[in-house]
Amino acid sequence: MSKIAVFGAGSWGTAFSMVLADAGNDVTIWGRREEVCATINERRENSDYLPGIALPPTVTATHDPEQALAGAEAVVFATPSQTFRQNLGEWKAFLSDDIVMISLMKGVELGTLSRMSEVMADVTGAGPDRIAVVSGPNLAKEIARREPAASVVACADEEVAKRLQALCHSPSFRPYTSVDVLGCELGGAYKNVVALSVGMAVGLGFGDNTTASVITRGLAETARLAMALGANPLTLMGLAGLGDLVATCSSPLSRNRTFGEKLGQGMTTDEIYASTRQVAEGAKSCSSLLALAQQTGIDAPIAEHVDAVVAGKITATDMMQSFVARDTKAETD
Amino acid sequence: MSKIAVFGAGSWGTAFSMVLADAGNDVTIWGRREEVCATINERRENSDYLPGIALPPTVTATHDPEQALAGAEAVVFATPSQTFRQNLGEWKAFLSDDIVMISLMKGVELGTLSRMSEVMADVTGAGPDRIAVVSGPNLAKEIARREPAASVVACADEEVAKRLQALCHSPSFRPYTSVDVLGCELGGAYKNVVALSVGMAVGLGFGDNTTASVITRGLAETARLAMALGANPLTLMGLAGLGDLVATCSSPLSRNRTFGEKLGQGMTTDEIYASTRQVAEGAKSCSSLLALAQQTGIDAPIAEHVDAVVAGKITATDMMQSFVARDTKAETD
Repeated sequence: MSKIAVFGAGSWGTAFSMVLADAGNDVTIWGRREEVCATINERRENSDYLPGIALPPTVTATHDPEQALAGAEAVVFATPSQTFRQNLGEWKAFLSDDIVMISLMKGVELGTLSRMSEVMADVTGAGPDRIAVVSGPNLAKEIARREPAASVVACADEEVAKRLQALCHSPSFRPYTSVDVLGCELGGAYKNVVALSVGMAVGLGFGDNTTASVITRGLAETARLAMALGANPLTLMGLAGLGDLVATCSSPLSRNRTFGEKLGQGMTTDEIYASTRQVAEGAKSCSSLLALAQQTGIDAPIAEHVDAVVAGKITATDMMQSFVARDTKAETD
Repeated sequence: MSKIAVFGAGSWGTAFSMVLADAGNDVTIWGRREEVCATINERRENSDYLPGIALPPTVTATHDPEQALAGAEAVVFATPSQTFRQNLGEWKAFLSDDIVMISLMKGVELGTLSRMSEVMADVTGAGPDRIAVVSGPNLAKEIARREPAASVVACADEEVAKRLQALCHSPSFRPYTSVDVLGCELGGAYKNVVALSVGMAVGLGFGDNTTASVITRGLAETARLAMALGANPLTLMGLAGLGDLVATCSSPLSRNRTFGEKLGQGMTTDEIYASTRQVAEGAKSCSSLLALAQQTGIDAPIAEHVDAVVAGKITATDMMQSFVARDTKAETD
């Protein structure tokens, strides 16, 4: 039985803790709020994020990062992307020299344009054999209900990826290995931006032809950027690219799609933030991804338009009109 | 103003006639049933397939193939795939020597394993510069409501593709050109089989993680076969591959997904046929596509399982259990 720490008591951190426990591990969740940790320990439930789901006995929680990490073979991070660098700096002292770090996060840091694996390397000095990501079509509420799901565990060191695969292979969760950390991270981050634009189309009343076209163009845009940066195109065709994108864009449970729907219905970004507690990662990461595309010299109309709508410079209607007005040409031009 | 004949007065034939009329053409629909033709001409509506949609004045209908084809620059076929060879043999006498033929059909012929473009070539002797297909995320009811949609017009001769693109470019329908007829046809045919398996998962109560995984694996299976036969992989990543697949699998309007849902709920193929008039193309084409994959030496677990469920050899539950039980490995193995 391995001991694993999971930082972040939100819906995905908690659901992934259940996967790890089902796979036979002893899991300690670190949570920012003491009352959430207390509820997990005393009521065996995360009533804020996964109400009604009974947690396995091998999942416990603590507010103390040192305690969470004591004896842990691996640590999983499922915390907000934009504050991760600062938080990891605080937790660093408690990380052992050989601990493997796994990111479940799907953001790109504003300003530095760093992916979360890069932040982990920067802050801790860990080599690529200690840095991994898990990404795929993994809506947290469905994982928590133990519906069958597949995912990708990526680490530059294939042997480490295989070890992590075994750590999180439960009866209902099937991880596939990959060595393409970059491709998985970009697929995961970009899909939130595409989900925002799909949500806008839905909010404006468009149907499945339109959303399928936006998804197709969105995946092409993601693949263009990812390949220019060195990712394997097959990653984007796979579970961490297409799979995650389709699950997020199809689901009424998706925060990014829902955020986009509200933009499509005419709400402003500030109004949406005022009405909900949950964060839509894509609303933060769209400007980082746009900057990354511009730096790389890649045409990124979806990131460009989503960023402008989120910033209040254009409306969702303007965005859709602009998409429809683009020149008709050969598909692969 | 060009004159164009459209054979087939079902929902897609009629909706595409509206696109052609909106693009400035004079359209004559050939319909098998005289009463449908009469309703189109007299009430300006196809009340059987697109009730409540007013047809443009430049769309008329006839039961006489010679009259439909008189003076036509192009003919569009939207009739059932399995009887197409025989029907085309009857219509052949009325086709001019330079008419361009466009298939909207998404089947593969049982027995011969021919795609519809191959049937057109076989029956008429036309060269590749007179044979084209239109395929994309194009749910007929949304097209008929003039919601914005994109599609692919493919012909081996790029100049012909451009000419056809201009013929069907309306304010709400954006065609992109391609020279990959094979890729478009296989994407269109295979997506019906994948939609059947997605429908089965939905009918069994699975959520968006599962359906997104099936879609991802389904597109990979499609691409494997298409590439082995010589298609361009980008076609499968595009509107006629991924786009059509996602639209079909997302939509409650899709006949193939609905057929799969009923199989998932425990109905047999015969019971479903007895309860509905509409045909699910994938239920016919799955055995042709499976045979094509076997002939080509391609692993095709989705076609294999769908074919077995449709034939009543296994249940949808057996299929899903078999998918979940497959060995865990590297994603791209």
